[in-house]
Amino acid sequence: MNKRFVRQKTHALNELAAAERVGDADESILPLLSKINALEDYYTTSSCAGRILLFQDLGSKKEDKFLGAWHRRVEYGEIEAALKPAEGVVWFRMEPAIIHVIARGEEAAARMLKTAYSCGFKRSGIASVKPDRWLIEVLSTERVDAPVMSDEKLLVDEGYLRFLVEIANEKYEACAKKLARLETALKDLV
Amino acid sequence: MNKRFVRQKTHALNELAAAERVGDADESILPLLSKINALEDYYTTSSCAGRILLFQDLGSKKEDKFLGAWHRRVEYGEIEAALKPAEGVVWFRMEPAIIHVIARGEEAAARMLKTAYSCGFKRSGIASVKPDRWLIEVLSTERVDAPVMSDEKLLVDEGYLRFLVEIANEKYEACAKKLARLETALKDLV
Repeated sequence: MNKRFVRQKTHALNELAAAERVGDADESILPLLSKINALEDYYTTSSCAGRILLFQDLGSKKEDKFLGAWHRRVEYGEIEAALKPAEGVVWFRMEPAIIHVIARGEEAAARMLKTAYSCGFKRSGIASVKPDRWLIEVLSTERVDAPVMSDEKLLVDEGYLRFLVEIANEKYEACAKKLARLETALKDLV
Repeated sequence: MNKRFVRQKTHALNELAAAERVGDADESILPLLSKINALEDYYTTSSCAGRILLFQDLGSKKEDKFLGAWHRRVEYGEIEAALKPAEGVVWFRMEPAIIHVIARGEEAAARMLKTAYSCGFKRSGIASVKPDRWLIEVLSTERVDAPVMSDEKLLVDEGYLRFLVEIANEKYEACAKKLARLETALKDLV
């Protein structure tokens, strides 16, 4: 039993509980996070079931600015309402599910990584290694990264935007299926 | 001095030399790979300076089919010529530079990861851990993932395709700059 790991795990679980209370957690993923956190060798930090974004890329010197962010399926009307003339390049993006898991050590990290891969999280890897703190990024492959506006002018028509919404929603569902597979596969990690 | 690491490194370097001879290596990245391979604690496996793709997504049951793949900047005419009516969804994609580096152990892996991050390879991670064989994925962030055709019908106009080509080429150049920074930073790894 390692004291530092246990202390850091307690801290992370308190932060997650606080985020839940203020509605600042991605609810659809909470049952899975609870199950991971119930395992002795692991705990989770920032995680997301997948998200759909509209953001302004203002060039490498400036930070991206969000016009909209949804941690769920979106409707076309929501994208239409958020898409206002904006400088720089506006991108429609779908990012896959990501779960940050801290593992107690090398052996626990390897087991989590293997399980993640087997459930379809093919971009998973170990993001950093410290004693008693192996940070695993459980990451899937679904992506959309399409520019839709440049210098306040739309680059595409409504039909294309509707297609992007449809395909981003499909990819969000594909992530949901992988997350469900992971939830089931956790029993092999005990 | 670990025999297994040295044997596997020799094997990897032979494979790279063979790929070079038949013109099957990404030439723009070879000087950087040579410099990494000259370091005692590391060697490289499959790597790419970034690429621009046109591919058919035929659904989760079937493998993607390439209509075109370029490990360099592209011209609009090349995309136009490669973009033939095709079933499923055809995507225009730009993938960032990726270098697979094997490190001799944990400490060497941590040094490479830190260097990669500092040069802008913010998606880098440790993909797998075996004794004397830590696989580091040095990966950057530049992406384009835009659907351009569905069920043999174009979804976008020529202006949009030209914009995708322009932005993908810019991102390819951004990768080239990061690779140059990494080449310079390698001296800190000796």
